[in-house]
Amino acid sequence: MSKSKVVVTRNLVLEAKRLLDARADQLEIVQWHSDKVGTEASPHIWKAQVLTFPSKPCERSWLLENVAGASGLLVMVSDRIDEELLNAAGTQLKAMATFTAGTDHIDLAALKKRNIRLGCITDCLSDAVADLAVMLVLMAQRRAGEAMTRVSRGQWPQMPWHPLLMAGPQIRGATVGFLGFGRISQATLKRLIAFGIERAIYITSMPGKPARNDHYGLLGRATPVNVVRDLDQLASESDVLIVGCALTPQTKHLIDANFFGKMKRTAVVVNIARGPVIDTNALVEALDQQAIFGAGLDVIEDEPNIPADHPILKQPRCVVLPHIGSATVQTREQMAMESVQNLLAGLAGEAMVNEWKL
Amino acid sequence: MSKSKVVVTRNLVLEAKRLLDARADQLEIVQWHSDKVGTEASPHIWKAQVLTFPSKPCERSWLLENVAGASGLLVMVSDRIDEELLNAAGTQLKAMATFTAGTDHIDLAALKKRNIRLGCITDCLSDAVADLAVMLVLMAQRRAGEAMTRVSRGQWPQMPWHPLLMAGPQIRGATVGFLGFGRISQATLKRLIAFGIERAIYITSMPGKPARNDHYGLLGRATPVNVVRDLDQLASESDVLIVGCALTPQTKHLIDANFFGKMKRTAVVVNIARGPVIDTNALVEALDQQAIFGAGLDVIEDEPNIPADHPILKQPRCVVLPHIGSATVQTREQMAMESVQNLLAGLAGEAMVNEWKL
Repeated sequence: MSKSKVVVTRNLVLEAKRLLDARADQLEIVQWHSDKVGTEASPHIWKAQVLTFPSKPCERSWLLENVAGASGLLVMVSDRIDEELLNAAGTQLKAMATFTAGTDHIDLAALKKRNIRLGCITDCLSDAVADLAVMLVLMAQRRAGEAMTRVSRGQWPQMPWHPLLMAGPQIRGATVGFLGFGRISQATLKRLIAFGIERAIYITSMPGKPARNDHYGLLGRATPVNVVRDLDQLASESDVLIVGCALTPQTKHLIDANFFGKMKRTAVVVNIARGPVIDTNALVEALDQQAIFGAGLDVIEDEPNIPADHPILKQPRCVVLPHIGSATVQTREQMAMESVQNLLAGLAGEAMVNEWKL
Repeated sequence: MSKSKVVVTRNLVLEAKRLLDARADQLEIVQWHSDKVGTEASPHIWKAQVLTFPSKPCERSWLLENVAGASGLLVMVSDRIDEELLNAAGTQLKAMATFTAGTDHIDLAALKKRNIRLGCITDCLSDAVADLAVMLVLMAQRRAGEAMTRVSRGQWPQMPWHPLLMAGPQIRGATVGFLGFGRISQATLKRLIAFGIERAIYITSMPGKPARNDHYGLLGRATPVNVVRDLDQLASESDVLIVGCALTPQTKHLIDANFFGKMKRTAVVVNIARGPVIDTNALVEALDQQAIFGAGLDVIEDEPNIPADHPILKQPRCVVLPHIGSATVQTREQMAMESVQNLLAGLAGEAMVNEWKL
């Protein structure tokens, strides 16, 4: 019996690699390696494993060439899965696993048409992303980026103390608004309740309609959680706005100049979802005009191509992080394991850990 | 009747100033103003008040000269209250208010000897400081300083994504240790429970003895909260260590090379109390040797005299903030009001909002 070919577009952490290698008798495993191996020291000091990673994301031309004849594919957020790629693969392709919760890099209709099963990550990264969302809310309110930068430039001795030096708004008593109210938004709210927020408001893709799921029993608590009728209400009533929705043609640039114009001048905006939901030019303008107090972004349009002279990086009240929402060792290990499990289950015709309903 | 003299070592926010000025018929108010007024734009966009602050802390020589004959004093963290100052004031001094929760800048025995009443801030800043403590825990674990700096230098395009890029430890499942377990530590723990921590441990100035107060009903929850027998146990079992104790001769350099040597390599340390509780040289060494994972400091020895070439600022895994724990507009306004109320009550022989038991 000939081996099934699987293509993997990145090295995996050790445990996940072992799980995949254990099927080497049945699988031909083709993995992307760029010439240069990344030199960054591994933060993985939990276990004595040596990790080497390609220094560049998988090249499109390599993927188009190597995908031919593959039965399975394990892809990253940087890989675009479209008609061209699926045609290059051929009709034997039956299972795909993505190392992401979102699927905006994948042409879902094209998969459905070909009966290709898709596995993705969902719940296991909610905690890590919600932790980062809370961190960004506090950093935006408490001017952490500005404060850190001034200290690291040696300016602290020249910062005369006064009662409002580096002061920002306090989260106690805040109305926290969510654009999108799925598991990550709800996990974020679950954390924020103990900070003494006044209430939460949210809107989903069905304005005015309440969320389908209450993942953490949030609706039974003393803090009110209310659905709003429209985006205007979300903009005007939020002291903290958290973007937690999927990126779709409908959500692209949903947070635009019009939205910022309706926000409170003391409000902060945090994006832990996908960059293009916020119109970056409008955000820069809002910060510049002090139409809002601050912002915290884990994601941004055109990432990772954000050069040092990008206008967003000139805003002292905006923190920009390099898309590290799920970047904890524990979560990334679990994501890698689930991706491999999804791939193997898809090839074997078994139940995936988490299958996307196409 | 001659007016009582009160000396105030900083400008106050508008409401507090009004409260003080309302007694101008009974009080001679002497306030520090340096020649140069601070040019920093006010972050106070909540109300249309213009704020000007002296550009330097109150000079010792000015204070020694002007305190003569004063009945009341309102001081800041930067003012040292000692025998010399009290002698310069004279025996009519009967009330002092400090714009701080800590009293380490004040010679308490000297006040007691002279029957001078002391009012200070306590509870009203717990929420703001606890918020910042949580922020620093997450920033230390999630490598926020390092991540921000790399993005702002334009390095994101050259950071090849891989599953452990910028990954750090996750707070879920962590043992959170507290050095000192008063109201601010407990307010911090109250917030951290929703992040899925495994348990909390703490030690007070009486090792092995449980805390006297349970301010937030923390002991009745599902997350175990246990007192530890000694510092060694606190060091070796904490995944997150939060310094929340007062600075006394006994707590100075309590966190030293010996302590760091017993910590987990994956642990982070956060200080929101007073700088000298941590031996800075030992912390730099611990970070340098990767004996711990990271640190978040709102306070540091010798602050604010931290020049750009200070060794702590060369540690990518250490975040240093300029002592902004209580720096929210809401809290600073309340602190200013309480300081003035304490001063006025002390002068009138009435009950203070919060009187330090000397």
